[in-house]
Amino acid sequence: MNKSRLYILKLGGSLITDKLREYTPRIDVIRRLAMEIKEGYIDDYKLIIGHGGGSFPHVSAAKYKTSLGFIDEDSKRGMSIVHYDALRLNMILLKEFLDAGLNVYTIHPSSISLSKRGKIVSIYIKPIIQLLQNDIIPLVYGDVGIDIIQGCSILSTEEIIRVLSIKLRRYYQPFIVMCGIVDGVYDKDPVKYPEANFIHEVNRLNIRRVLRYLGGSYGIDVTGGMRTKIKILYELAKYGVNSMILNCLKPGNLKSFLEGVEVKGTIVKY
Amino acid sequence: MNKSRLYILKLGGSLITDKLREYTPRIDVIRRLAMEIKEGYIDDYKLIIGHGGGSFPHVSAAKYKTSLGFIDEDSKRGMSIVHYDALRLNMILLKEFLDAGLNVYTIHPSSISLSKRGKIVSIYIKPIIQLLQNDIIPLVYGDVGIDIIQGCSILSTEEIIRVLSIKLRRYYQPFIVMCGIVDGVYDKDPVKYPEANFIHEVNRLNIRRVLRYLGGSYGIDVTGGMRTKIKILYELAKYGVNSMILNCLKPGNLKSFLEGVEVKGTIVKY
Repeated sequence: MNKSRLYILKLGGSLITDKLREYTPRIDVIRRLAMEIKEGYIDDYKLIIGHGGGSFPHVSAAKYKTSLGFIDEDSKRGMSIVHYDALRLNMILLKEFLDAGLNVYTIHPSSISLSKRGKIVSIYIKPIIQLLQNDIIPLVYGDVGIDIIQGCSILSTEEIIRVLSIKLRRYYQPFIVMCGIVDGVYDKDPVKYPEANFIHEVNRLNIRRVLRYLGGSYGIDVTGGMRTKIKILYELAKYGVNSMILNCLKPGNLKSFLEGVEVKGTIVKY
Repeated sequence: MNKSRLYILKLGGSLITDKLREYTPRIDVIRRLAMEIKEGYIDDYKLIIGHGGGSFPHVSAAKYKTSLGFIDEDSKRGMSIVHYDALRLNMILLKEFLDAGLNVYTIHPSSISLSKRGKIVSIYIKPIIQLLQNDIIPLVYGDVGIDIIQGCSILSTEEIIRVLSIKLRRYYQPFIVMCGIVDGVYDKDPVKYPEANFIHEVNRLNIRRVLRYLGGSYGIDVTGGMRTKIKILYELAKYGVNSMILNCLKPGNLKSFLEGVEVKGTIVKY
């Protein structure tokens, strides 16, 4: 029996917030994405949406050094404030998605998992499976992790969707769409070098070369760590979870993808 | 080895919100309770705080008939709106508790459980145990339930703390404090009959008589269903989880209790 396809959309923090201004959502982008998902979504596949925190939890996470765990007497309070800030952005997205007519329901990552230095080591996914069965879109987000080694840690959206995609392979055929602000991977920095070539597919034949391209200054964190993303996605591809980098600053890209129309982007497979 | 005591405080919806006015928190009461917990809490026991939804989720829950499940095309959207409304109140409490200097962290009940017509049938408590071990106070609240029979249901704070208290008996010695707006149980309606006698303890010797007292008009839902509460608490007492009804409209009551000072209230034991 063929498993149903499951698209896991990751809306990057740089896409949905102004990363340079604290607590500033890009409401116009969020609203457009909500409409694109509503219009493009056809019911022959399931959907999960995860979103980054951008300029919401990152401010408090930096202040309290949440990624380092319980390091001083403010750390526990800080952990809760980071969760609060992440929640604030989640509620903005939730509201926009509901207003667009999407049936979404938030599942809070730090409530359903335990981490070990930021890597999930235990997760409870029954409610997510139940929502998917009822054609409700589970909404997850980058959060604090309750960490069994260091008390707390940062639970990145990538880590959450990585673990969800692996766990859900039993029931679905997951495909991850990294919705960001760049077209995908080039063989050199396309801003500096107009002759840079676009790479349509990363696979076992060119992965080493691609990581080398991304290893220079071009790979430094301007796009939210493209090199790290590609490494994670390539590892997932080995488990049968393919993915795509998609520029969702370009209106219509996400809608086209969801409708099954071919769009420019870098595919990662094995 | 003696297990540590675990106090599970349930802050009633009538206590922390104005039930007659939509989306109206009683900020002064919430702030006072936060201070009383901060001042009264001594670290020879663990603490969990659960709170009702009062006039926050009840409005949308009534509008979408969430307790009945997926009954029409608005039910799924309604489920998410009820969760959103419950979250709004939770975030108000979270902020006040953090401001009072309490290390609290919200665990979202609908993310960690599955229900069957409003009764929890599966729950993931590892993050709660981890928080308790780190002396962080888990904060839970009345929420929507993801329901395996009817799609969604109401997950009452009573149901959550009932299940938590039973599950956590393995590690702790739980005691539930129902923080509400009445002193406890009387043998007749104390408002109508000034000669009514206060009942200091409900146990196996007087439980039938008490339920009979509460069966008349006095028991009708003015206090959030005292008869139902006593029945649930008495059932828990059979499992070794004792409890107390405490009037937390009276300033100082909660602080005194947490400090170990005797306060007026109805104890429920077996």
